[in-house]
Amino acid sequence: MLFDETLSRIGALDESAAAAARALHARLTKPAGSLGALEALSVRLAGLAGVCPPPLLEPAALAVFAGDHGVHAQGVTPWPQEVTAQMVANFLAGGAVVNAFARQVGATVTVVDVGVLAQLEPAPGLLVRKVRAGTRDLSVEPAMTRDEAMRALTVGMEVADELVSGGARVLITGDMGIANTTPAAALIAAYTGADPHAVTGLGTGIDSETHARKIAVVTAAVVALEADDPVDILAAVGGLEHAGLAGFILRGAALRVPVILDGVIAASAALAAAAIAPASVNAMVAGHRSAEPGATVALARLDLEPLVDLGLRLGEGTGAALALPIAASAVRVLHEVATFDSAGVAKK
Amino acid sequence: MLFDETLSRIGALDESAAAAARALHARLTKPAGSLGALEALSVRLAGLAGVCPPPLLEPAALAVFAGDHGVHAQGVTPWPQEVTAQMVANFLAGGAVVNAFARQVGATVTVVDVGVLAQLEPAPGLLVRKVRAGTRDLSVEPAMTRDEAMRALTVGMEVADELVSGGARVLITGDMGIANTTPAAALIAAYTGADPHAVTGLGTGIDSETHARKIAVVTAAVVALEADDPVDILAAVGGLEHAGLAGFILRGAALRVPVILDGVIAASAALAAAAIAPASVNAMVAGHRSAEPGATVALARLDLEPLVDLGLRLGEGTGAALALPIAASAVRVLHEVATFDSAGVAKK
Repeated sequence: MLFDETLSRIGALDESAAAAARALHARLTKPAGSLGALEALSVRLAGLAGVCPPPLLEPAALAVFAGDHGVHAQGVTPWPQEVTAQMVANFLAGGAVVNAFARQVGATVTVVDVGVLAQLEPAPGLLVRKVRAGTRDLSVEPAMTRDEAMRALTVGMEVADELVSGGARVLITGDMGIANTTPAAALIAAYTGADPHAVTGLGTGIDSETHARKIAVVTAAVVALEADDPVDILAAVGGLEHAGLAGFILRGAALRVPVILDGVIAASAALAAAAIAPASVNAMVAGHRSAEPGATVALARLDLEPLVDLGLRLGEGTGAALALPIAASAVRVLHEVATFDSAGVAKK
Repeated sequence: MLFDETLSRIGALDESAAAAARALHARLTKPAGSLGALEALSVRLAGLAGVCPPPLLEPAALAVFAGDHGVHAQGVTPWPQEVTAQMVANFLAGGAVVNAFARQVGATVTVVDVGVLAQLEPAPGLLVRKVRAGTRDLSVEPAMTRDEAMRALTVGMEVADELVSGGARVLITGDMGIANTTPAAALIAAYTGADPHAVTGLGTGIDSETHARKIAVVTAAVVALEADDPVDILAAVGGLEHAGLAGFILRGAALRVPVILDGVIAASAALAAAAIAPASVNAMVAGHRSAEPGATVALARLDLEPLVDLGLRLGEGTGAALALPIAASAVRVLHEVATFDSAGVAKK
């Protein structure tokens, strides 16, 4: 079974490859440590790949997992629910911000319908893998059954498999789902124990009344949560795209391919992945620091420092896309930079 | 004369183009403000170009201004002076970090010998525009005469002109010069009034004894400084590559082409440019926050927020190169993202 096989393949970093990358850095024509956070990142990616230098981060594949949310009924967002499907159409037409960013950085965009309410017509770039048409209202009952959560996790794993089989050497998380910062906040509170007030933000921009309602919904959901198993938590207060992303991340880790995380939705899915398989963190690259407070809480728990911090709060994969050239540059150094010896440059 | 003509062309942002960019942002398929710092940047670049959307930031041209420093004799760095010329050879062979980063982000690299001590042979990618073979020791006498500083400023202007004539729609600053963080610190202290202790860092990595010597050199140079005119300050305590970069930035501003600043050398040159023509700041994009403390002091004075903050302290243009895809993505949004109306997406 893909789930069990995936978990069995997720393991520690290869310390000898990481050590080789560290040793190589010391010989390259630059002062020791002068690439700051990029040196540690490239060393970790060598350890992930088990080889130094690790593969260049190309081709790059971004997957936007899309789903709807029963909790939309609680008035946690001013956006109409049909915007999820409308934005999927926008992604497929290439007109969203994530498409523009992906073109800039050279990543493909694949949209995965893991739980959109509307029935979507087949289209190029769209994978219809709908587990169900939106989640149940997590403030009333579990958002998903355990079986549904497992199926959404498996969808994410399959998509990662397909993209890597197609040549991708780096995966990038994206998401779309009106109301999906509410389950993300609930997941972050549930997995980290943080106060719902501290992890429930303004999402795409809500007024203080809506924010108070959203905090109340998240608080009630977390208080009512009886689950202890990570998949049961995901099922109870998560979303189908959150579960899909958790599977996507886990499969990336199993394939030893880095996964660049976008914002708060990805960070909540990453917590789920880490709860299911702690060593999956080895494959995670924090793309950016979302303006959503829960993202920062989640990244701190995962001990990940983001590459970009520009106040973005759009989702879709936009922040992660901006981080791709930075992560790719870190790896490229290990492939292309001359050593002091080879370049005839004197050392200090 | 190029200098005067350049200054006469540097002016205010076009407020109507900026307003058009702001209005366009409100119609694009994303929540208002959700692109954080990138929205203000794209609005400013529309104002700089005088048109909305402003030109895409491609092709991109990075210029590495190289020079040597008489103050090397004071023992402010453990690196031998000949490393400047050796690294120029490394750049020309494509083996330095800046080359790897430039390939990643799609920028050309041009090396400008504005003051390397060694005589360099002509080579593809090298512009030999040597004003003199290294500066004088700024701790003993003015590093340059005013005429030499003006000539180096003019070299920078000419290089910007040539690159933009060749098609570049964004300029990126790079630098090479063993010991060049010492004049950079002196320039930052001189232009901002900051305490030399606060702006003199560890450069490429020096021990505390060398650091103390470097601070003493910077302090003495700033105390001895009698100049008040911005070009005279540049001549007294700057470097040939700092002056070249200041001219490069000024010409970019005159041509209304954005200039992405690298680290502390670029930041000190940017202060010189801003002192010479305050409105040149409109064209400056802070690429990254160098680990050198003077860079942060300079950027604060220029009221610029960096796009990347990853602890880099290499120079060469490396931090600015990493910022290129981010700035380019900000502009691309205004070209390619659908509006709510055109995409049939409901508003909240």
